[in-house]
Amino acid sequence: MVSQTSSGYFDAAAGLPLHPVAIEAWQAAVADGWADPARVHGAGRRSALLLDAAREAVAAELDLQPDELSFQPSGPLALQAAVLGTLAGNRRRDGAGGLVHSAVEHSTVLRAATWHAERGGQVHQVEVDETGQVAAAAFLAAATTTGTAAAVLQAANHEVGTRQPVAEVAAGLAGSGVGLVVDAGHELVFGEPPSAPVFTADARLWGGPAGVGLLAIRRGTRWRAPMPVDEAESGRALGAPNVPAIVAAAASLRASRQDRQQQAGRLSGLIDQLRRRVPELVPDAVVLGAAADRLPHLVTFCCLYVDGLSLLTELDRHDFAVSSGSSCTSDTLTPSHVLVAMGALTGGNVRVSLHRGVDQADIDRFLAVLPAAVARAREGVTINAPAARHRGGPGEPAGQLIDSRGRRCPLPVLDLARALPDVPVGAELTVLADDPAAASDLAAWCRMTGQQLISTGPGPAGSDGARAYRVRRLR
Amino acid sequence: MVSQTSSGYFDAAAGLPLHPVAIEAWQAAVADGWADPARVHGAGRRSALLLDAAREAVAAELDLQPDELSFQPSGPLALQAAVLGTLAGNRRRDGAGGLVHSAVEHSTVLRAATWHAERGGQVHQVEVDETGQVAAAAFLAAATTTGTAAAVLQAANHEVGTRQPVAEVAAGLAGSGVGLVVDAGHELVFGEPPSAPVFTADARLWGGPAGVGLLAIRRGTRWRAPMPVDEAESGRALGAPNVPAIVAAAASLRASRQDRQQQAGRLSGLIDQLRRRVPELVPDAVVLGAAADRLPHLVTFCCLYVDGLSLLTELDRHDFAVSSGSSCTSDTLTPSHVLVAMGALTGGNVRVSLHRGVDQADIDRFLAVLPAAVARAREGVTINAPAARHRGGPGEPAGQLIDSRGRRCPLPVLDLARALPDVPVGAELTVLADDPAAASDLAAWCRMTGQQLISTGPGPAGSDGARAYRVRRLR
Repeated sequence: MVSQTSSGYFDAAAGLPLHPVAIEAWQAAVADGWADPARVHGAGRRSALLLDAAREAVAAELDLQPDELSFQPSGPLALQAAVLGTLAGNRRRDGAGGLVHSAVEHSTVLRAATWHAERGGQVHQVEVDETGQVAAAAFLAAATTTGTAAAVLQAANHEVGTRQPVAEVAAGLAGSGVGLVVDAGHELVFGEPPSAPVFTADARLWGGPAGVGLLAIRRGTRWRAPMPVDEAESGRALGAPNVPAIVAAAASLRASRQDRQQQAGRLSGLIDQLRRRVPELVPDAVVLGAAADRLPHLVTFCCLYVDGLSLLTELDRHDFAVSSGSSCTSDTLTPSHVLVAMGALTGGNVRVSLHRGVDQADIDRFLAVLPAAVARAREGVTINAPAARHRGGPGEPAGQLIDSRGRRCPLPVLDLARALPDVPVGAELTVLADDPAAASDLAAWCRMTGQQLISTGPGPAGSDGARAYRVRRLR
Repeated sequence: MVSQTSSGYFDAAAGLPLHPVAIEAWQAAVADGWADPARVHGAGRRSALLLDAAREAVAAELDLQPDELSFQPSGPLALQAAVLGTLAGNRRRDGAGGLVHSAVEHSTVLRAATWHAERGGQVHQVEVDETGQVAAAAFLAAATTTGTAAAVLQAANHEVGTRQPVAEVAAGLAGSGVGLVVDAGHELVFGEPPSAPVFTADARLWGGPAGVGLLAIRRGTRWRAPMPVDEAESGRALGAPNVPAIVAAAASLRASRQDRQQQAGRLSGLIDQLRRRVPELVPDAVVLGAAADRLPHLVTFCCLYVDGLSLLTELDRHDFAVSSGSSCTSDTLTPSHVLVAMGALTGGNVRVSLHRGVDQADIDRFLAVLPAAVARAREGVTINAPAARHRGGPGEPAGQLIDSRGRRCPLPVLDLARALPDVPVGAELTVLADDPAAASDLAAWCRMTGQQLISTGPGPAGSDGARAYRVRRLR
């Protein structure tokens, strides 16, 4: 009945076990708040009282008026409604319908953008630097381009923790007529609500139950439901609200924000240790994301020459739960768009996200286990993967062609790393690869190791759609 | 911790307190199934196991393959996704995009239809008879009209209980290329799943938690997500599924279906008593809906000359929770579209929907309380409402004009009922009313009492947009 978190659960960003107060609140609310709060009878009124109290509590906690806050069926659905509803609400103004977002937004935003584009809408994606941060000036320049209806920016990146310049962007867009949506995410757990006209969050991030997303729309903001709705939640949702889950989400939000500064400081100290120690303990490991302007509880690092899935599996054996943006851990075999946008290596990628249940001993144990886990995962890759076939490049006697076709992450990178020492400094070789992750990973590896990616293009005739990556050895 | 249902909770169709097995299942699943089931670690795998088991259990219970069943964030959202997704999936075929639905579908279907029409789609509504039943032949004729992409029919009406000819419609549409969506609703609690290619239900109807809708799409059925989705639920939803709620919904579905025939028989007997006794005990009360081909646990009756809200309030004092399709109980002050489509009087309307916790003693107590409650509510209406001003109709010395402007349901009907005995049989009078509910209610009252509604039209100049209803006294 009490949620079980092993002390090695380091995947807080994917959701937490229920906070004990959330379980208690749910049990109480189920007894008294199961009825539809819109009903004109005792059971309905009791539900409505609980719902009102929860709305007031969350609104007070987040400096909102109660009528600015609606409860949505989940965090992703709240974010989708925020993005598409802000677009719909601002679309009429001089025919504008454009959507601007950073390249590292939650996949829900990218899906909404694709949806919008498929229906003839303009979409502009603002690129990020190697820490995953968008430049406020570039974002504002894009967002204030004529025709923009909505702009979407996360408070901080959910994969690498880098904070975005939300305050600057919000100030720049105030009065511009462009609707700004902020995916507040973890900032509501550790920091202050954004000053944006629209923001969203997922109760699962603070130990609330699944099935509750927050959608805040400040008074005077244009927003129109992107799908049919009814009278529930002031016309911002469909169907009776899930009162017990909402009550539980409200209780756990307040509980988790009570000591948020203390928790942020403590977790940030633990993350600092990982940022410093992992590259010391693990050969060929790099830490990604901003070092200072970041979420306190989250870090992503990347171990070369290993695939993320093997590393997750090794860590899982030791009861550590982490996540990975590597392509091998995705259903679609595509690497994380966040890491690709940062130009980071996506293979061997590990995200650690902590929560209040993690302490120093857990971090010590993780650091004790990690080096051997990486070594074993690397060994597995080397043993199971025969070297790629090398052969002279066509019409290029001095060059080499490395055939990595049919080989998945991290093998194309490993093939390149193995073959490059065999060519003289200043000479080049070509990797032929059909793994979609190879495009970003080979480029990232060259950048990281100081080699030169000369060009990327179609492979020679007969190479079955593979791409050819020409690399020059510089050192 | 145990859900509290007063024995006078007669609003099962608006949602039930959680079934005890649902609470137990939720508590167990929260401990072990809180993580995102798509994650590659122990906590994710434990969630995935629970989710798979729940899906298999529900699928087995409803004669589905597990991959035909997806869990949606609520019953209404499942129904909306079914309707708009079936339209989207069938739209390309020879450019067809029409939607056919009965006039008495759940408001979610009507909202989706309005949405579709606002975007240029064709919508055809099939009318019902006075019991609320659609004729299979009429429905099939509309649905097989060239250009129809999707047809929507409920298994049984949620307000009056009348069953619809789903089997006949499904057989008639098989192989037609028109997508059929069935809102299965209460039939999953008491009967068998419909033979339709797509059907939906809400777990709240069988004591499952809020936040779980079922969407069944049989193999080989065309359906396309009407909004952006991700990999969750085989591309039929967005965001990680709510595993604890799904496990609870599955457990309570199995538990409530275990003795479904026995419960259906028992509740049907109690409803039969209400159908027979209410008109005997309450003057000017009529029972609506089909007498035989109906849901077992639900009946709607109508008490003339009283408003639904007053009656609900009187019954609530005695701890009876019922619902009403009267306009005064709706946020928008419009009467139930179901009752209007049936040509029924909407004022003083009461829906009783029972559940396994109700027994003979509760029904006896209800029948003991009801006559006085109706009498008191009627008294309140009479005391608080001075008689409408009567005056001679313009240019019609023998006629009378009853000014019911500014008076809400049930007053226009009451005004007519009070005034009609004062005119001779064969003579006529005119009611001037601006209550939107008056249009259907005055017509229904004339039908019920054997009087003649001669015409309905705009009121005389200066009547501020009121409508004039000409009525002839026939008896």
